[in-house]
Amino acid sequence: MKTALLGYGVVGSGVHALAEARPEHGITISRVLVRRDIAPIRAIATRDFQEIVSDPSIETVVEVMGGEEPALTYVKAALAAKKHVVTANKLMLSLHYEELLALARANGVRLAFSAAVGGGIPWLANLLRVSRVDRIASLGGIMNGTTNFILTAMQQGGADFAETLSTAQKLGYAEADPTADIDGLDVRAKLALSCDAAFAQMADASAIPTLGIRYITAADVAQFHALGLTCRLIGKAERTEAGVAAYVEPMLFAADAPEAGVNGTGNIISYCCEGLGSQSFFGLGAGQAPTASAVMQDLIDVSCGATPFSLAHCEGSFVPDASKASHPYYLRTSGALPEGCIDRMLGQTPAGAACITAPMPVSALHALVQARLAAQESVFAAGLASLES
Amino acid sequence: MKTALLGYGVVGSGVHALAEARPEHGITISRVLVRRDIAPIRAIATRDFQEIVSDPSIETVVEVMGGEEPALTYVKAALAAKKHVVTANKLMLSLHYEELLALARANGVRLAFSAAVGGGIPWLANLLRVSRVDRIASLGGIMNGTTNFILTAMQQGGADFAETLSTAQKLGYAEADPTADIDGLDVRAKLALSCDAAFAQMADASAIPTLGIRYITAADVAQFHALGLTCRLIGKAERTEAGVAAYVEPMLFAADAPEAGVNGTGNIISYCCEGLGSQSFFGLGAGQAPTASAVMQDLIDVSCGATPFSLAHCEGSFVPDASKASHPYYLRTSGALPEGCIDRMLGQTPAGAACITAPMPVSALHALVQARLAAQESVFAAGLASLES
Repeated sequence: MKTALLGYGVVGSGVHALAEARPEHGITISRVLVRRDIAPIRAIATRDFQEIVSDPSIETVVEVMGGEEPALTYVKAALAAKKHVVTANKLMLSLHYEELLALARANGVRLAFSAAVGGGIPWLANLLRVSRVDRIASLGGIMNGTTNFILTAMQQGGADFAETLSTAQKLGYAEADPTADIDGLDVRAKLALSCDAAFAQMADASAIPTLGIRYITAADVAQFHALGLTCRLIGKAERTEAGVAAYVEPMLFAADAPEAGVNGTGNIISYCCEGLGSQSFFGLGAGQAPTASAVMQDLIDVSCGATPFSLAHCEGSFVPDASKASHPYYLRTSGALPEGCIDRMLGQTPAGAACITAPMPVSALHALVQARLAAQESVFAAGLASLES
Repeated sequence: MKTALLGYGVVGSGVHALAEARPEHGITISRVLVRRDIAPIRAIATRDFQEIVSDPSIETVVEVMGGEEPALTYVKAALAAKKHVVTANKLMLSLHYEELLALARANGVRLAFSAAVGGGIPWLANLLRVSRVDRIASLGGIMNGTTNFILTAMQQGGADFAETLSTAQKLGYAEADPTADIDGLDVRAKLALSCDAAFAQMADASAIPTLGIRYITAADVAQFHALGLTCRLIGKAERTEAGVAAYVEPMLFAADAPEAGVNGTGNIISYCCEGLGSQSFFGLGAGQAPTASAVMQDLIDVSCGATPFSLAHCEGSFVPDASKASHPYYLRTSGALPEGCIDRMLGQTPAGAACITAPMPVSALHALVQARLAAQESVFAAGLASLES
């Protein structure tokens, strides 16, 4: 299957190497769109996307440029030209996947993106697979390696957030602009894709209440340690009487929970089904090798006519509703603790008083935190709930 | 796809219920081979296998009787009659799969058995999938729920082996004849199937050195606790300079290892690939719902022309060689501790002295233990190695 790569960074070159190392799959990288001269691929390189989209011999286009544009324009043009598209571009997908999916359907081609959640962990493919025979009651876990690295380092080293983030940036585990990771937006996009797959409807990502780890302090982490708990940034969805609740927030886990044992840039993602019970998938969530591997898996599926991960089974859309999901929270704020919902005081930290709340609706707690942040308070909240709740 | 069930116990009835609950997959259970009258399925029941094998409308036969015979005879007849076969019968497979696989190939039909390892954990399918793009360096984990239940209960309750086994039998977690579980034979069969999938050659299961948990004592468990270690029965395969080493043995894990956190009848199975690194799959390994679910997944794959788990890619066979895999052991024996390989003495227990050995070849340690057992010594050994070694 003749295939074009859009981009030749670490992932693109990794896909090229895998395709050449595994000739038995018949994936031939025949064109590569690049912006600079790269000697080893000079014979197949082009700076002109039109040469790719107008080449009838190219069946599949792999978009590994990242970013919204020009990736979006290229992907749309490729789909319109009836070429299959494989991508790992979460940002583009989360903003435009309904349009892209419709375009793929209209042109009878596949839009595959196994790498978008969990990197090399075969998460989305297995989520789709299990939903063929079982009803998914909940799903979620650690979906972002950058924040897990930061939380692990704070827990192990006792340093504060800013210093740990800076270390993560120096080590290449966090980007220069870390917003998407530390504010939970990356997890939100992955959670929305997971909901699409699990519940066969497109989830409105903008309706997912999202708290990140930007405001965590060393004193918060010391409190968690004293309680025997470990903090992890979690994306979670669960069926409630109000439909599907989905939310992104820091959560606290007991030492024997699998999430507490996942350190550094590891990911662990689980589903709980009505028949099968819980199953978890654990591994490295990102990086060149896992992402290139997931792209190659999609290419093989496309090439041999198997169904790669896509959302082609989705019908319609839904707005996640976190008003009926409820659990206690750790809440620390420089302002006044909210009256009437304190279960247990934990005492003072340099950035304010901390407590454990009574069980609160997720939507209410998130609204409270966002209001306090808007009022310039220093606030950090973390849920106290296991994935099996 | 018209399908016949051979057997209607907990798994067979579970498959029937799943097929009816998910009519969108078009799996129709049109005949059931039973040995007694079962009112709700009287209309499709038969006691005569010939009615099934000679019915040209039946495309697929699901064998959920268990045991070697008459399951083997029926499966061979079904394959010869050009019907696909789905089974979860590890015993039959481990004794006869080369013959069965050849028969399936010769007749152009599929022989699928996703349920044979890990129950509902999608282990074999993902192992095959990852080996499309990566080279597997090692694999293994907790593959038997019965022994994990016993080891967890001994660890938590302090009781001795015989008492704990008896409890497990009363609770339905161990069979009346527990030999296959507690002597590691069930794990050996699952490990051999995993090796077949991972290394694309049929592993000779009889060449896999196997130690079970029959001789573990409460005093051994107390020693592990004092060392901060947790004992689990493990099947493991790893590439060495002598080829693939495979072995089944109790192993000791530090508290932060994922295996140490898998309690009760849970399973965790991992592979480590050269590109992707380690990935782990965790969930309930056996029981009605997981097994029926895995059988149903195979049926859907067969029905829609996708490749279900099979060993059709295997070429030839190999003899696992554990002589070049090496790690330290906990060794406790009522006889003399072997001279020259003691790294650290641990002191006396009621059933003999215990030590930690220097790193020893797995094959040598297993041979030593088997010789001591043959000489009527009381011996228990457990490896000290992580799956990531």
